[in-house]
Amino acid sequence: MKEIKKIGVLTSGGDAPGMNAAVRAVTRTAIYNGLKVVGIHEGYQGLLQKDTFELGSRTVGHLIQRGGTLLRSARCKEFETAEGRKKAYDYIQEIGLDGLVVIGGDGTFTGASIFSDEYNIPVIGIPATIDNDIFGTDATIGFDTALNTIVEAVDKIRDTASAHNRLFLIEVMGRDAGFIALRAGIATGAESILLPEFEEYQTKLREYLEQKHKRSKQNGIIIVSEGSKIKAYDIYKEITKEHPEYDVRLSILGHLQRGGSPSAYDRVIASQLGVAAVEALLTDRSNEMVGIRNNQVVYVPLSDSIKEDKALNKNLLRIVDILSI
Amino acid sequence: MKEIKKIGVLTSGGDAPGMNAAVRAVTRTAIYNGLKVVGIHEGYQGLLQKDTFELGSRTVGHLIQRGGTLLRSARCKEFETAEGRKKAYDYIQEIGLDGLVVIGGDGTFTGASIFSDEYNIPVIGIPATIDNDIFGTDATIGFDTALNTIVEAVDKIRDTASAHNRLFLIEVMGRDAGFIALRAGIATGAESILLPEFEEYQTKLREYLEQKHKRSKQNGIIIVSEGSKIKAYDIYKEITKEHPEYDVRLSILGHLQRGGSPSAYDRVIASQLGVAAVEALLTDRSNEMVGIRNNQVVYVPLSDSIKEDKALNKNLLRIVDILSI
Amino acid sequence: MKEIKKIGVLTSGGDAPGMNAAVRAVTRTAIYNGLKVVGIHEGYQGLLQKDTFELGSRTVGHLIQRGGTLLRSARCKEFETAEGRKKAYDYIQEIGLDGLVVIGGDGTFTGASIFSDEYNIPVIGIPATIDNDIFGTDATIGFDTALNTIVEAVDKIRDTASAHNRLFLIEVMGRDAGFIALRAGIATGAESILLPEFEEYQTKLREYLEQKHKRSKQNGIIIVSEGSKIKAYDIYKEITKEHPEYDVRLSILGHLQRGGSPSAYDRVIASQLGVAAVEALLTDRSNEMVGIRNNQVVYVPLSDSIKEDKALNKNLLRIVDILSI
Amino acid sequence: MKEIKKIGVLTSGGDAPGMNAAVRAVTRTAIYNGLKVVGIHEGYQGLLQKDTFELGSRTVGHLIQRGGTLLRSARCKEFETAEGRKKAYDYIQEIGLDGLVVIGGDGTFTGASIFSDEYNIPVIGIPATIDNDIFGTDATIGFDTALNTIVEAVDKIRDTASAHNRLFLIEVMGRDAGFIALRAGIATGAESILLPEFEEYQTKLREYLEQKHKRSKQNGIIIVSEGSKIKAYDIYKEITKEHPEYDVRLSILGHLQRGGSPSAYDRVIASQLGVAAVEALLTDRSNEMVGIRNNQVVYVPLSDSIKEDKALNKNLLRIVDILSI
Repeated sequence: MKEIKKIGVLTSGGDAPGMNAAVRAVTRTAIYNGLKVVGIHEGYQGLLQKDTFELGSRTVGHLIQRGGTLLRSARCKEFETAEGRKKAYDYIQEIGLDGLVVIGGDGTFTGASIFSDEYNIPVIGIPATIDNDIFGTDATIGFDTALNTIVEAVDKIRDTASAHNRLFLIEVMGRDAGFIALRAGIATGAESILLPEFEEYQTKLREYLEQKHKRSKQNGIIIVSEGSKIKAYDIYKEITKEHPEYDVRLSILGHLQRGGSPSAYDRVIASQLGVAAVEALLTDRSNEMVGIRNNQVVYVPLSDSIKEDKALNKNLLRIVDILSI
Repeated sequence: MKEIKKIGVLTSGGDAPGMNAAVRAVTRTAIYNGLKVVGIHEGYQGLLQKDTFELGSRTVGHLIQRGGTLLRSARCKEFETAEGRKKAYDYIQEIGLDGLVVIGGDGTFTGASIFSDEYNIPVIGIPATIDNDIFGTDATIGFDTALNTIVEAVDKIRDTASAHNRLFLIEVMGRDAGFIALRAGIATGAESILLPEFEEYQTKLREYLEQKHKRSKQNGIIIVSEGSKIKAYDIYKEITKEHPEYDVRLSILGHLQRGGSPSAYDRVIASQLGVAAVEALLTDRSNEMVGIRNNQVVYVPLSDSIKEDKALNKNLLRIVDILSI
Repeated sequence: MKEIKKIGVLTSGGDAPGMNAAVRAVTRTAIYNGLKVVGIHEGYQGLLQKDTFELGSRTVGHLIQRGGTLLRSARCKEFETAEGRKKAYDYIQEIGLDGLVVIGGDGTFTGASIFSDEYNIPVIGIPATIDNDIFGTDATIGFDTALNTIVEAVDKIRDTASAHNRLFLIEVMGRDAGFIALRAGIATGAESILLPEFEEYQTKLREYLEQKHKRSKQNGIIIVSEGSKIKAYDIYKEITKEHPEYDVRLSILGHLQRGGSPSAYDRVIASQLGVAAVEALLTDRSNEMVGIRNNQVVYVPLSDSIKEDKALNKNLLRIVDILSI
Repeated sequence: MKEIKKIGVLTSGGDAPGMNAAVRAVTRTAIYNGLKVVGIHEGYQGLLQKDTFELGSRTVGHLIQRGGTLLRSARCKEFETAEGRKKAYDYIQEIGLDGLVVIGGDGTFTGASIFSDEYNIPVIGIPATIDNDIFGTDATIGFDTALNTIVEAVDKIRDTASAHNRLFLIEVMGRDAGFIALRAGIATGAESILLPEFEEYQTKLREYLEQKHKRSKQNGIIIVSEGSKIKAYDIYKEITKEHPEYDVRLSILGHLQRGGSPSAYDRVIASQLGVAAVEALLTDRSNEMVGIRNNQVVYVPLSDSIKEDKALNKNLLRIVDILSI
């Protein structure tokens, strides 16, 4: 195996709070081990557009607390083609990178996996997405922060819901996965939750609307995952039609869920995983993701991380039913 | 004039952070002056439904920091009728209220003004609405908190806008008035603002979209007041049609703008105005709003507070143009 | 075993954010299962002073987001005596409690364990302390919130440290354990950390002060655990004496670390553990703590939870050294 | 008068949130008007050490939301000497500055006033200090943010005070002035406040301690200004001696009060004052401070701003007494 002397780091896909903390950790760990580090702008696109710069220890100073990503992020169609990847590889050769750390979600890892197979360049993935939908790691960077952001927003909405005895439908992010909606629902004391994974929860929602809310006439919060079969907006229209007497409002939390200073937890795991990623490259690992399982750093083949579906904690679902009485 | 021994207090209309701080101040000032205080639930509706309870000094303990309103709020159609007001007055006589403090916005004050004229019951209004659209007071309770909430949300959106070089249209509250949008625009460093009051800003927005954003390809934030002639959603559709190359997103902040723990400023003016309202009743004032002008408490006839239009600070508008270069 | 029909719940020891969320979960789970629930004021003291009240589903509404504890907390000397415990038991008999859920830290569990042994009353403990120093559970309720509070405070201090190139010594809570200091240090990007568990870190601190800080003359943050052998104040005095040229400040974060609305994580585990505690009583468990290990609910004998020392994650320590270059 | 083509900007004295927003506004207004702008590092020291750099429109992008100051700040002994000021002037000539904007408090303005008198260089001051102790302006940049920071911290302390029925002495900043303590006291619902300006409040504090707190045995918050004649620590010692039965704690909030992202209000006035400062230079004003009075920009001779004492709002003091019953 070729000795690692210079590595590149990029952030790709949807941005997540803590990506900067991970870039900082990768950079400093590399420097600590005598390596050079190159920051690549806008994900794989930076490799195609030769948009890179040297990262120093001071470049990443005071970065741990910042939302967004210094390296910027993008989705890159061209990298999905063989020509695109060839071009990226040529540039990597040109600037002499011996390894790559890619920070992102499953799209990022899919690209990384193919690229690493094709060109035999060592690549390590760090899972960073607010959706937490990566197999092989208990948590992804950004998930905890997004949850806290949602909880703060819903607490505010609860204030106004209580003041007016209103019913709120609140759509949260999470793509096809209900990780965000499930935990946000528990943490905000939601009266009902709608998840992509469990269609039977439509029945429970209906029960809540037809029985409990009718009886109590109290305020209510219903958390709807953006990936649910039935959309928040459609439920909203249905309720206003079937229950014109309900004072119902729709709130789509939107992109504020992606930003903000990372939580303590996300900063810590971003630091752990950034260190682990560089150390993985230094010990000849490749085509793997570094993740957190049972509070320990683990290594998972990139191909597993994207192929398998991570299961929702069913026990948490049960809790929603008990606590919303 | 009849001596004041017992007063009622209610919150009405859209809720605003700091309403609770005002209820606390009214309650404690009344007790401090030897009066009894009755809390009325859900605005004028509580008078019609005889839904009231005694407020003690301890009832309002640890209330200053809470969003929403302990008294709950509602809009009340019946109180707009003469019969409704007669019923309310009868109940006021029944429980022996000698004066009323009403906390809310222009709808609340309109009802109060008519009621006070009809029944010669002393009424004092406290301006509380996040929209700041009440004439005769520099600030309304809740406005500062809502601004801070918006600023925090837009800062988060800026993180993700920067990460992806995206353009965001962000709709903020404020009804027909641009007070929120204007200050939120300055405070978030928005690239452009659309206000109900100034149609020419559509031209400026177009300039930004056609020229500056085209050139810079940087991230951008456009704050759109919900009362603007052209709606945020329509601008969004137009941009995606005319500039399919722009990466544009729409975010409607929604009801989270109404909630949350009140800011220091809102707690202080809520305290000042609550004290002033009770002292106004004790000095035989009626049919007036207590407001803040030039950092002093002032008294404004309720009829003025609802008739006149408060002007936007044009100087602030000029600042947006200068600082968004 | 006697059938469980009525249970009591108390919070004891130092308060922690999320205690209210746990009380809510215990209450609603009990009601969900047809039990009656009695809230006991001020920990064990409430049993001695017969200060209890019935908890309903609505009593605990809108409680999940509140810091502090509705039940209040206290340390109770009298309960450490056999007479005290006898008195408590008599009252428990008097009001017909069939089981007890105690929410707190090791002091709370020590009392619970002795009491349960003496009187054969089923007792389940829920770990709630910001210090995270309970064996058998990965997390205690309040730890995550306290970390986030500290991180926000230190981020603010970092602003002013940077503005003036200052060195800050920041003392954080945690009693004899460095869990808070270690994670807070990583999450704030601290230049050095002093923990009770590792004396060699005094050497590292000295290195930082004598070499790195001397060279860089940059701002610096040193996190000192309150349980460290050498106190923050003494280090402060030493630095000002040995390095009068350094611009050094001391900040003792203090009790604000105990308060605030609980984080999403703390609300979720408080909900999980509250449900688990009641279900444990219903399945004839006693004298155990419900905890979280590897994201699953586990049961640990109370005696173990207080006897054993939980180890710090040494891997995290290594990270501090790497990332503070 | 010489035409203004190039100006310098610096931040000096204690840092305050919003200084960056003011630097941004100065920079962009200058560029908008065709001027060049030079950033001076670490206050007047940067002039002596020739530590300056050109500020562009993009340099100050995404700066409005950041605490601290990009330009860093310092107190500079050498500038207090005639030689120091001569050296500064020579450098100003060397790099061709035609005017200076200084952002800071009274120390900053004192230096500016002497310097402008001696060398006939146009200087405009922008008031930025968390203490709000500048005559001629209703608000200084940073005051509102500091208040909000304190209010959030005290709300957290109130949680734990309530949980344990504790009494907290909380020392807040403000130097010789009670502006911070007075408003923080009202906004946190403090039971008592100690200010530098009113010695009689020691009597009120004593009354609270000897009578009200004795009676209620409830939690209590006492806000003590750091400039009070009797120090928070001494009161703490006295209470623990005279009332060993009280559960009393001391909390010195410290430097976290100086940091953090500026509030909406501080960002708006920083923007207004930054624009006004550059426009003042362009209209041949000098040796003045730009301030905010009655929501309008005003110009105040620098000599007045530092000579006169701004009065506390006595009406607010009265409110504390009424609302703490």
